Amino acid sequence: MNQIKVIFEPEGKEVYCLPGSTILELAQRAGIGINSPCGGEGRCGKCLVRIIQGERGKINSREKELISTDKLKEGYRLACQRKIYQEMVIEIPETSRFFNPKILVKGITREVLPKLNLKKIYCDNLSPSIDEPTALLETIEQKLKERIPLKRVKANIYLLRQIHDKLRRFSFKATFVLYNEELISIEKGDTTKKNYGIAFDLGTTTVVGSLINLTNIKELDVASRTNPQVTFGADVISRINFTLKKEAGLKILHERIIDCLNEIILELTRKRGISPEHIYEVTIVGNTTMQHLFLNSSPESLATSPYVPTTKREVTVAAKKLNLHINDDAVVYVSPNIAGFVGGDAIGTILATNQHQERELRLLVDIGTNGEIVLGNRKRLVAASAAAGPAFEGGQIKCGMRAMSGAIDRVYIDDDISYNVIGNVEPVGICGTGLIELTAALLKVGIIGKNGRLKSRDELKGSPSFSLLNRIRERPKGNEFILEEKKEISITQADIRQIQLAKAAFCAGIKVLMKELSVREEEIEEVLLAGAFGSFINVRSALAVGLLPFSFKIPIRFIGNSALVGSKMILISEDARREAEGISQFCGYVELFRDSEFQELFIDSLPFP
Amino acid sequence: MNQIKVIFEPEGKEVYCLPGSTILELAQRAGIGINSPCGGEGRCGKCLVRIIQGERGKINSREKELISTDKLKEGYRLACQRKIYQEMVIEIPETSRFFNPKILVKGITREVLPKLNLKKIYCDNLSPSIDEPTALLETIEQKLKERIPLKRVKANIYLLRQIHDKLRRFSFKATFVLYNEELISIEKGDTTKKNYGIAFDLGTTTVVGSLINLTNIKELDVASRTNPQVTFGADVISRINFTLKKEAGLKILHERIIDCLNEIILELTRKRGISPEHIYEVTIVGNTTMQHLFLNSSPESLATSPYVPTTKREVTVAAKKLNLHINDDAVVYVSPNIAGFVGGDAIGTILATNQHQERELRLLVDIGTNGEIVLGNRKRLVAASAAAGPAFEGGQIKCGMRAMSGAIDRVYIDDDISYNVIGNVEPVGICGTGLIELTAALLKVGIIGKNGRLKSRDELKGSPSFSLLNRIRERPKGNEFILEEKKEISITQADIRQIQLAKAAFCAGIKVLMKELSVREEEIEEVLLAGAFGSFINVRSALAVGLLPFSFKIPIRFIGNSALVGSKMILISEDARREAEGISQFCGYVELFRDSEFQELFIDSLPFP
Repeated sequence: MNQIKVIFEPEGKEVYCLPGSTILELAQRAGIGINSPCGGEGRCGKCLVRIIQGERGKINSREKELISTDKLKEGYRLACQRKIYQEMVIEIPETSRFFNPKILVKGITREVLPKLNLKKIYCDNLSPSIDEPTALLETIEQKLKERIPLKRVKANIYLLRQIHDKLRRFSFKATFVLYNEELISIEKGDTTKKNYGIAFDLGTTTVVGSLINLTNIKELDVASRTNPQVTFGADVISRINFTLKKEAGLKILHERIIDCLNEIILELTRKRGISPEHIYEVTIVGNTTMQHLFLNSSPESLATSPYVPTTKREVTVAAKKLNLHINDDAVVYVSPNIAGFVGGDAIGTILATNQHQERELRLLVDIGTNGEIVLGNRKRLVAASAAAGPAFEGGQIKCGMRAMSGAIDRVYIDDDISYNVIGNVEPVGICGTGLIELTAALLKVGIIGKNGRLKSRDELKGSPSFSLLNRIRERPKGNEFILEEKKEISITQADIRQIQLAKAAFCAGIKVLMKELSVREEEIEEVLLAGAFGSFINVRSALAVGLLPFSFKIPIRFIGNSALVGSKMILISEDARREAEGISQFCGYVELFRDSEFQELFIDSLPFP
Repeated sequence: MNQIKVIFEPEGKEVYCLPGSTILELAQRAGIGINSPCGGEGRCGKCLVRIIQGERGKINSREKELISTDKLKEGYRLACQRKIYQEMVIEIPETSRFFNPKILVKGITREVLPKLNLKKIYCDNLSPSIDEPTALLETIEQKLKERIPLKRVKANIYLLRQIHDKLRRFSFKATFVLYNEELISIEKGDTTKKNYGIAFDLGTTTVVGSLINLTNIKELDVASRTNPQVTFGADVISRINFTLKKEAGLKILHERIIDCLNEIILELTRKRGISPEHIYEVTIVGNTTMQHLFLNSSPESLATSPYVPTTKREVTVAAKKLNLHINDDAVVYVSPNIAGFVGGDAIGTILATNQHQERELRLLVDIGTNGEIVLGNRKRLVAASAAAGPAFEGGQIKCGMRAMSGAIDRVYIDDDISYNVIGNVEPVGICGTGLIELTAALLKVGIIGKNGRLKSRDELKGSPSFSLLNRIRERPKGNEFILEEKKEISITQADIRQIQLAKAAFCAGIKVLMKELSVREEEIEEVLLAGAFGSFINVRSALAVGLLPFSFKIPIRFIGNSALVGSKMILISEDARREAEGISQFCGYVELFRDSEFQELFIDSLPFP
């Protein structure tokens, strides 16, 4: 089945989707946030887009109600109502974009009022007067005070040393960058419009960075990389072990993650024609181990009882001390964490979903290599780590890969099997969603048993079709199911075991938290599935493989990479930082390793439903 | 004339003095501060010392009144009353020592209550509990809170990285060093008693450091060095020029002064068996140029109109950023300044003499290479720089040297000339006091004329004795007077010109300040002569050469290196720092270069009185 090409304007971004996707979903996937406070139900009318080319389709009753006749004539439609069945060019107006100043986690909108610590101010006429000689720093302070409320400008020794030389070279006109009252940069001419920040989500397997223009709080671009630390261990435990067993192991892992961030910084700034010098703030959310490695701080205490981090608190550090290639004195804010294995990414997700302030009892599941589960509401919130392993992000899976061009992301089974490849190219591997769909499909046709065994042809005795049976190969280490012969793309017995282990960890973890809060299944009002992977998963397949220990009754919502949304929130709002710091204190933690019932529940959860 | 040996106990310090010195004066000179709030007038009884060996002398009426009979029998006397005429061993009891917590500037005692930002606290039992797992930094914080009032411990990234490793290696017992709420060091075992600081006076020619035990606020030792920057220029202007004209000139001068401080640190710590790691605070007072060079901050703005510093304010910086070989995160506090040419040393002197808070109108003259003059009282205070050059510290004088072993410091003239050498060794050169006495003597006998000319034998025609005339040598570049033939120690015409220039700068500067405050000579209640050199100068000689533009009527007091006393005050007291910062704002400044009358007054002041 071919994907349909859609172009989003004015950026000219080209994306592909399957027939029947809504414009809202596709834009989200393309990294373009569209307002939809009603959750895509066609009630708020905030997701207005204009169809420039392609069939505009029949206007439905909600559009009629919410869009003016003039606008309808011009081609405006609701992004949440309009499904895509053919090639289109769609304009997304500024007014419909989120993050301005609203932040949206698919369907959940939190009002985030930007509140930056950062200010850029251009001053001229800075040469000290002969009649009233004033020291250079104090002259700068006087000029700044004319513009902003300010008690006293502080300058670290490196900046202090530059003041004289820069003022002279810049003819006593310069732009000053202040972080609170701390001078962090002195720049030639008026650069006040060049003011950027990057919000990072540091995943065990995937690292994502979002470039934000801090002058108007707009997201300019998103870039991601596989975490280069994966070659030293797929999960956090193996990375910690690497730092303990290998000489300079910590240094190696630290340098790799810094290199990775620098690559993302380079990509984002090059693409947008921005000087890295004009990036003054960076926020980091990641699991606690990733944050330790990022800071070059030993994670050893996380590996030995009682598994505590060096600190639960936020850490603020100048970019130059971490060798990040942005402005030397840019402020790097590393999120607080909740516990040794529930980190800043979980805080980011809670922040983005507002779980800590809602009356509604929700279960939040962040599906990642080091996944987290958070259960509760504004009364009580408790979290646990589900060490699901990298299966869902394509790690440790024979043909696994991230959801990018060449990845099989959809699988259709009937008499034979067919699939969809992202980008309509030759397939290269299978991403998480493809893996779940394939597993669900093979379970349905009985090729995989409930116990997870990939059966041999003999065992099946012709019950699935010949074409399907023909794809089974028997190998010394367990059977294998061939998806694409030519490209040698298959799923192995070992892959299925990985999926079982991962989903059992989530299921058992969820049950422990429910017990901790004395919550029954029917009391949970909604399940939020977070993680980049969670955006595109098929609910039916997910439940079919038993990713959640529930029946089909609880509403499940996919909220995408909400950790990154949390990272953006703390980037643009000082208040969000205080809130994150509050969540770190408020949210409880259950150590699953130490929970007597967890192991038992884990084993119970290994079979497929 | 031979000097008398005196040993001070319990340190066993051996010093030499001329007959007739008081014990108080000699102790001061030996770097042992003795309380004397009455100014050495025998009224307070605070300077009690015990004469262990040597003649105790006749008890005078003041001693009878102030010392108990028992103590008199044991050999206790008043240090200010007792003069030394023969070898002695003298014990100075703890109770008589100043800086505990009083600070004394010869005869002026200011009560300084120690108020340290620094705390060292030993904690054990730091391993995180399994029942209530707490992050490492927060565990430390909890333990510290049991001991001291504390809101929240902060740790920079370098300290944070050490926490886990150190706690583990130190078996979860350690001493924590806090500067305010900032953790600056984590040490093995209980090192709470090992807590030191160094107060520096950064002179253009001489650098002095005083090692203070911060646990009991006692001065342990003092060490000094010639500022190694002298080879790049004798005065501040030539040093600034060096930074401007020579590539990497600033770097060179900066590194030299840092090397010099490191040498002093090494000497002080070695002598006292202290680890440099246990030095956590350093204070710096110096003229504004010295402070810029120390901070590696370009002094160029000081050299061009309107001659302003980079900042007038205090600068606080971690030792590692300046490459000082003490504890990495030791706090270096660089004093605020008053203007481009009146620096932290002047603030130190004002602070030590309390000039800014007294009702009495005083003139403060700090005699150094870059000397300062401060006139006023608590109503109004105004300062100027007198670029006297290094003559008084022995710089740019043919046989000049600092007042140390081998220096001729006293000169006696009659039919012939005789002199005293510090340490009773072979003479090596002449120090500042010797130079003044020699000049005064030669003026008196007419060998030097009022215009400063060192006359030829022919001109003098036998009016002084033959022996004196015989010491005059005629040279192409002006005459020379030989003090010591064998060792080639002499004073040259050029030396006398240096003295003239220096004293003219002081005299003209003083007159300009008097004009600025509309003060007549008779309104000045006291003159305070500061500077290491000022301690031992002979008043009569000083006035004879015209170092001050006054008659003999105004009381003149020598107060020694009061800049260093100020540096000690800001080392031990947070309140003194606030006071120093206040003086920086309160004290006015007169730019002599720009004063129309200064040049004229300067020329008027060149002749000797």
